[in-house]
Amino acid sequence: MFELTFLGCSGGPMEGSTCALLVKPATSSYLTLKPGELLCIDGGSGLASLTETIYHEQRTSQPYSKTIELLASQTNIKSPQDICEAVVTTPFAEIQGSPFYEARKIFSCLSNYLITHPHLDHIAGLVVNSSGFDAENPKSVYGSEVCMSALSAHIFNNIIWPDLPQHKLLSLNSVNYEHPFSPSHGVYSVTMFELSHGVNYKSSAFLINYKPADARDNASADQEHMLLVFGDFESDRVSGASTNIHVWQQVAPLVARGQLRGIVVECSHGDSLNDSLLFGHLKSSDLIHELATFKELIEAEGGSINGLHVVVNHVKDLDSDVRLQILKELRDGASLHQLDIKISLPLSGVSLVI
Amino acid sequence: MFELTFLGCSGGPMEGSTCALLVKPATSSYLTLKPGELLCIDGGSGLASLTETIYHEQRTSQPYSKTIELLASQTNIKSPQDICEAVVTTPFAEIQGSPFYEARKIFSCLSNYLITHPHLDHIAGLVVNSSGFDAENPKSVYGSEVCMSALSAHIFNNIIWPDLPQHKLLSLNSVNYEHPFSPSHGVYSVTMFELSHGVNYKSSAFLINYKPADARDNASADQEHMLLVFGDFESDRVSGASTNIHVWQQVAPLVARGQLRGIVVECSHGDSLNDSLLFGHLKSSDLIHELATFKELIEAEGGSINGLHVVVNHVKDLDSDVRLQILKELRDGASLHQLDIKISLPLSGVSLVI
Repeated sequence: MFELTFLGCSGGPMEGSTCALLVKPATSSYLTLKPGELLCIDGGSGLASLTETIYHEQRTSQPYSKTIELLASQTNIKSPQDICEAVVTTPFAEIQGSPFYEARKIFSCLSNYLITHPHLDHIAGLVVNSSGFDAENPKSVYGSEVCMSALSAHIFNNIIWPDLPQHKLLSLNSVNYEHPFSPSHGVYSVTMFELSHGVNYKSSAFLINYKPADARDNASADQEHMLLVFGDFESDRVSGASTNIHVWQQVAPLVARGQLRGIVVECSHGDSLNDSLLFGHLKSSDLIHELATFKELIEAEGGSINGLHVVVNHVKDLDSDVRLQILKELRDGASLHQLDIKISLPLSGVSLVI
Repeated sequence: MFELTFLGCSGGPMEGSTCALLVKPATSSYLTLKPGELLCIDGGSGLASLTETIYHEQRTSQPYSKTIELLASQTNIKSPQDICEAVVTTPFAEIQGSPFYEARKIFSCLSNYLITHPHLDHIAGLVVNSSGFDAENPKSVYGSEVCMSALSAHIFNNIIWPDLPQHKLLSLNSVNYEHPFSPSHGVYSVTMFELSHGVNYKSSAFLINYKPADARDNASADQEHMLLVFGDFESDRVSGASTNIHVWQQVAPLVARGQLRGIVVECSHGDSLNDSLLFGHLKSSDLIHELATFKELIEAEGGSINGLHVVVNHVKDLDSDVRLQILKELRDGASLHQLDIKISLPLSGVSLVI
């Protein structure tokens, strides 16, 4: 099982809480993290978001998301549990000490970032935080060649931000699609898939394979847990490509073998939005279309999608909060397609175990 | 008089609360803003920060800064007034309605951004917010040619962010140093000065001249109020250049005539930091050195620096909070150089009248 902490899961236009996801084994505690156990997928938010989450969990021992307070008059969501079928956890409630200091300590344990694409809402926190990184504990950043080149040419270019890779505070590592790689310490094996994020934009999904220490030498498949995390992307229905079905084809056998714990996937909009305004994102019916495709492929492998966790993020904070609308549309669509899945819409600051 | 709202005044590495400053005439209310009255200087934070500030001021009618809560164990600062000699205000306390909706409404009244330099901690909020801008109320962004070219080449380049200038959601306007320009509606006349922000980095200061509506046709100088806002910069003492003394020379006569309401200036570090680690920023003794130079020039014009508001931001949120240390160093230095100035160190979320 994995514990996921959404430092941010907004699709904008609100700054400071855009997509960044901490991932660790659910069996590990933040008090006793081992090297390599903590990953961050995308870096739209970071240290400040974690500091706030620690502050609130320490005081109330309750799951906290400021999104609920700020959008109170536009939504009936009263707690993160209202829109999450996965178990909502409070992994920072037991941490003693200053939230600022403790957040920095946790970030010092974070060695590896996986970046899905270089849009600013997925990197701004990583970049601003990076001036506080420690040369004795540099961060390794992984992503596609296109993404790493963009960070090098347009961000760490001594114009938008100092060239910190040159100063060894972080390294930018291009990896190839569908060639598994192991971030430092070998706790995880990661496979990256290509996604379409609208005309001329590429994004990535990461399949994260966690190998418990006692299973790393023998490849005992039933001890491996996997998690599939998508960056921003559009539906094959909209792109006319077969990018997503290719990912589902690769991952379906893992579901059939009971290894995939869940998927984290975007759904930026409700179905009322016209397709011409999607700009490379999914709306509810697109996600259902993709999951129905996935279901067929899983069944062809002799398995079932039933019980799979589907965690939805990147909802756009526009004129009204559409989370309850998206949740209803997803549940109706799942029912129509006999998808007995567990749907969660976390908010920035929320932690889930799947 | 001006009312300043610091959407962010952190120098990093915390994301989401880096430098962005709303400026309006103190005589105007956020409930009845007139076109062109609201300016934003830098865009490190934005809509989300304003939403949080409105939320807290509505509930408590007290000045609020989350920085105080998050750094509580590292500082003895209990309220913004502890470190501000200017009047601390709560301009959003009387606003009714959803903080999210009201923040968007205020941002729809904001037509003009002045950007001091293109470092990400000064633009990230503007960029992420920009996807929510309205084509019917596009934003005009002003800055040096170097800064606007950087935004065009490295941010709004369809790689890091969509080319929104092409879609008319905002325009990038290069202005020349020391050639006054008037953002739309002519409420202000602005003059930009060149600053040095370390080796190979340029930054800008903006001298903002507010002309009340009934004084715009006749240039009655005693009705004009001025404010000088610096981007990140280093001391002439460190650079060996005369960049800053040139600014002080231009502005000294305005102080002698009683027109300058105050200056907003950075002081990223306390004096314990070694000069080799300043990276183009000021520490306390640098700021005192600059102000002592300014004092001499004002006196040469027959005026006095006494009573001038000096508002200090961009303090770095590093291992411990150095604000009280910086305040003591500045007060000691001011005393030594007979600078009878009013020093304020606002925090993100705080509003001041000067």
